[in-house]
Amino acid sequence: MNLARRTTTEALGTALLLATVIGSGIMGDRLAGGNVAIALLANTLATGAALVALILTFESISGAHFNPVVTLAEATTGSLKWRDVPAYLLAQMSGAFIGVAVAHLMFSEPLFSVSQHVRAGSAQMFSEFVATFGLLAVIFSCTKKKPNAVPFAVAAYITAAYWFTASTSFANPAVTLARMMSDTFAGIRPVDAPGFILGQLLGGAAATILFRWLLVDKAETKNVHEQRTGEGAEIFSKGMIE
Amino acid sequence: MNLARRTTTEALGTALLLATVIGSGIMGDRLAGGNVAIALLANTLATGAALVALILTFESISGAHFNPVVTLAEATTGSLKWRDVPAYLLAQMSGAFIGVAVAHLMFSEPLFSVSQHVRAGSAQMFSEFVATFGLLAVIFSCTKKKPNAVPFAVAAYITAAYWFTASTSFANPAVTLARMMSDTFAGIRPVDAPGFILGQLLGGAAATILFRWLLVDKAETKNVHEQRTGEGAEIFSKGMIE
Amino acid sequence: MNLARRTTTEALGTALLLATVIGSGIMGDRLAGGNVAIALLANTLATGAALVALILTFESISGAHFNPVVTLAEATTGSLKWRDVPAYLLAQMSGAFIGVAVAHLMFSEPLFSVSQHVRAGSAQMFSEFVATFGLLAVIFSCTKKKPNAVPFAVAAYITAAYWFTASTSFANPAVTLARMMSDTFAGIRPVDAPGFILGQLLGGAAATILFRWLLVDKAETKNVHEQRTGEGAEIFSKGMIE
Amino acid sequence: MNLARRTTTEALGTALLLATVIGSGIMGDRLAGGNVAIALLANTLATGAALVALILTFESISGAHFNPVVTLAEATTGSLKWRDVPAYLLAQMSGAFIGVAVAHLMFSEPLFSVSQHVRAGSAQMFSEFVATFGLLAVIFSCTKKKPNAVPFAVAAYITAAYWFTASTSFANPAVTLARMMSDTFAGIRPVDAPGFILGQLLGGAAATILFRWLLVDKAETKNVHEQRTGEGAEIFSKGMIE
Repeated sequence: MNLARRTTTEALGTALLLATVIGSGIMGDRLAGGNVAIALLANTLATGAALVALILTFESISGAHFNPVVTLAEATTGSLKWRDVPAYLLAQMSGAFIGVAVAHLMFSEPLFSVSQHVRAGSAQMFSEFVATFGLLAVIFSCTKKKPNAVPFAVAAYITAAYWFTASTSFANPAVTLARMMSDTFAGIRPVDAPGFILGQLLGGAAATILFRWLLVDKAETKNVHEQRTGEGAEIFSKGMIE
Repeated sequence: MNLARRTTTEALGTALLLATVIGSGIMGDRLAGGNVAIALLANTLATGAALVALILTFESISGAHFNPVVTLAEATTGSLKWRDVPAYLLAQMSGAFIGVAVAHLMFSEPLFSVSQHVRAGSAQMFSEFVATFGLLAVIFSCTKKKPNAVPFAVAAYITAAYWFTASTSFANPAVTLARMMSDTFAGIRPVDAPGFILGQLLGGAAATILFRWLLVDKAETKNVHEQRTGEGAEIFSKGMIE
Repeated sequence: MNLARRTTTEALGTALLLATVIGSGIMGDRLAGGNVAIALLANTLATGAALVALILTFESISGAHFNPVVTLAEATTGSLKWRDVPAYLLAQMSGAFIGVAVAHLMFSEPLFSVSQHVRAGSAQMFSEFVATFGLLAVIFSCTKKKPNAVPFAVAAYITAAYWFTASTSFANPAVTLARMMSDTFAGIRPVDAPGFILGQLLGGAAATILFRWLLVDKAETKNVHEQRTGEGAEIFSKGMIE
Repeated sequence: MNLARRTTTEALGTALLLATVIGSGIMGDRLAGGNVAIALLANTLATGAALVALILTFESISGAHFNPVVTLAEATTGSLKWRDVPAYLLAQMSGAFIGVAVAHLMFSEPLFSVSQHVRAGSAQMFSEFVATFGLLAVIFSCTKKKPNAVPFAVAAYITAAYWFTASTSFANPAVTLARMMSDTFAGIRPVDAPGFILGQLLGGAAATILFRWLLVDKAETKNVHEQRTGEGAEIFSKGMIE
């Protein structure tokens, strides 16, 4: 797959993911009659289902990261070449903001609006650490051991994490930045975003370190080294997407 | 499979799909005590689950389109012969109206009733564009890369799209026309139907153009040409459904 | 598998299915604060999930029918020997009543209590016809074409049918008789049961006739004949449960 | 896999499971506006989804027991060596308490707090017997006959059991002990815990006895004997986790 197709796919997938998160948040909020749990149930159901559909649809083209932390982790483990990382990140960021605008257009909201939704404090940051740690745990292990199950495992994980973390599990810096520009159910105040992203990066780093030990044996360590230096990356990537 | 079996299957599957959409809408509306979010959650759960069951059940016979946009897209890409298209569309249209009547009979409603449900405006039409674009994206990519996952990917997508689009994602002209004749939760005013169908056709066309580029490489382009002119269509279709 | 293991399995599986239907009905009803849609959502989620688990668990032993209409249909198509049918039906009936008692014990209700839940009228009977027709359609086609998907297809179908039929889709004579003895959310007045069972039998018969035409070609017709007369049944059954 | 990796995995998986149970209980309770059914729906959805993700993620390393009853049952059937059992139980217990603390930190609750949640009486204990019997039935049969379906079967079973048992199906002694230390939605009074654990152990024992008869034929009995005495355990375990 050439890079143009892969970055288009990352942008498109991230846009549809954001459209789902924002759009279903607005719909849930409008219809739930003030019961936040019902609105969040709708938001959760839509996001989990969208992840199943979007990862199944796009993983064979770009790997379906839709998330800078995932892209960085894949580069660290050698499944993505470092020289492709900037294009992936740019595609995810652009797609995320486009997705917010698409959701707002569908629901007759202003194209962008700065969120007033307070998500402050260390408990929220710790929630993002846990959420992203768990997400990377699922991705590292399933990519290696159960590649066909990745779409279902990731979607199931996020479905759970919407409820078991206090922050509703953003777990994604591109998503976090784009959600600053939506003054709706799923938004986040810009001032709270850096703390979220810090928690996400630390959680991703912790998972990367732990799962290198949990998953890689000596024989494989050699292979990972080879992947980083040449064609190995293609092969691993091909195995991952089956 | 001969054409009689395939069109019977398209009519039956579309009828059961419409019975689900209309029937679960009525049930949700009657029981939810005025909370529209709860009614729509029930409607969503039933529709998503029905799509899993119906596509698994019928795709090996007819391809389980249940949707004129899907049938047209499959003909465009060569997986369905153009000479079978009119019979498919007729079967889907007939099935859709039968399904509405079956739902009404089960819930002791008049056989048909013209809907008063207003779904007007450009945001609604744009929602249908997005909804159908996404549906075709899922179908094009999964049919080619993950054929066994199609039932789950389509059902998951529609589950999400009920909530992330402002129109609750009709994404299907046969469904749209039949829902004009149900003055219940899931209905649509006849005057609003043409805008929905226009959005759906444009969304389907946009996805067809984009995914031809995203998915087809040069070697395959030649194959697609062959499929359109002869027996190739059977082979591709066979691969698609198992 | 000898018959003792298979009938024990049918009794156990049907008991757990009934415990789920009755138990989750009581739990939903007690907690939902009068919102019947929320209670039915809980009842639906539990029943659909239980069917996934129970069919995956028990199909390799007995075929996981848990339903006299399914047993009769399998005998008609030759996948079950007619001489095993009485033992299957008896096991399902016994299991169903045991399951009701188990649920009542768990929720501190009387072991059995005659239901006062009115489910009368031709629309209810027609709903059972549609519900059982659809269930058999799913089973016939998926058993033959997608055997590994049967647990998910059946569970998804029933999840949908709880909402798209006006009767909440009993679709099972053993379940119907046992639910007469539970004066709780999921019960049915004894006087309404015969109409339900009639609808179920007619729906099952209609599906059997239609899918014989939709699914069986000439070459296979000969095989079905052989299965009925000898060892063929074992082979087909083995293929089905994989 | 060496034992350090496997016990780390058991601790980590059990911690994430408890964080999900407690965390989603708090979130559901806070947002549901007093409707306990809605809070329990959220708790159920999160727990079921987490089980799919966690078992897919960790079963290839440790078998993903997360539950002393499962560990004991696997040792009884020869799939785990008895000498590994103490380390597994210790890891599960430690992980469970860590998970409770993590959830409390995310939701700004005290690290531990003794639960006041009354769950007393024989109906509750019988519920735990049924819940654990069913869980082991699912695990025994699917591990042997459908190993790839285990994550989905277990998650679906627990999703159902949250609603069809009166105790919301703890079905796990480590989970039971840790939930004593959370005075939140999912907690249990310490005085009620022994009855729960007794019910769980009896349910597990009953399932172990019944499924030895239901699942093992004469030829296999010999193999099980061999597994207990030597390297066979590795082989069976390898087959289980695919």
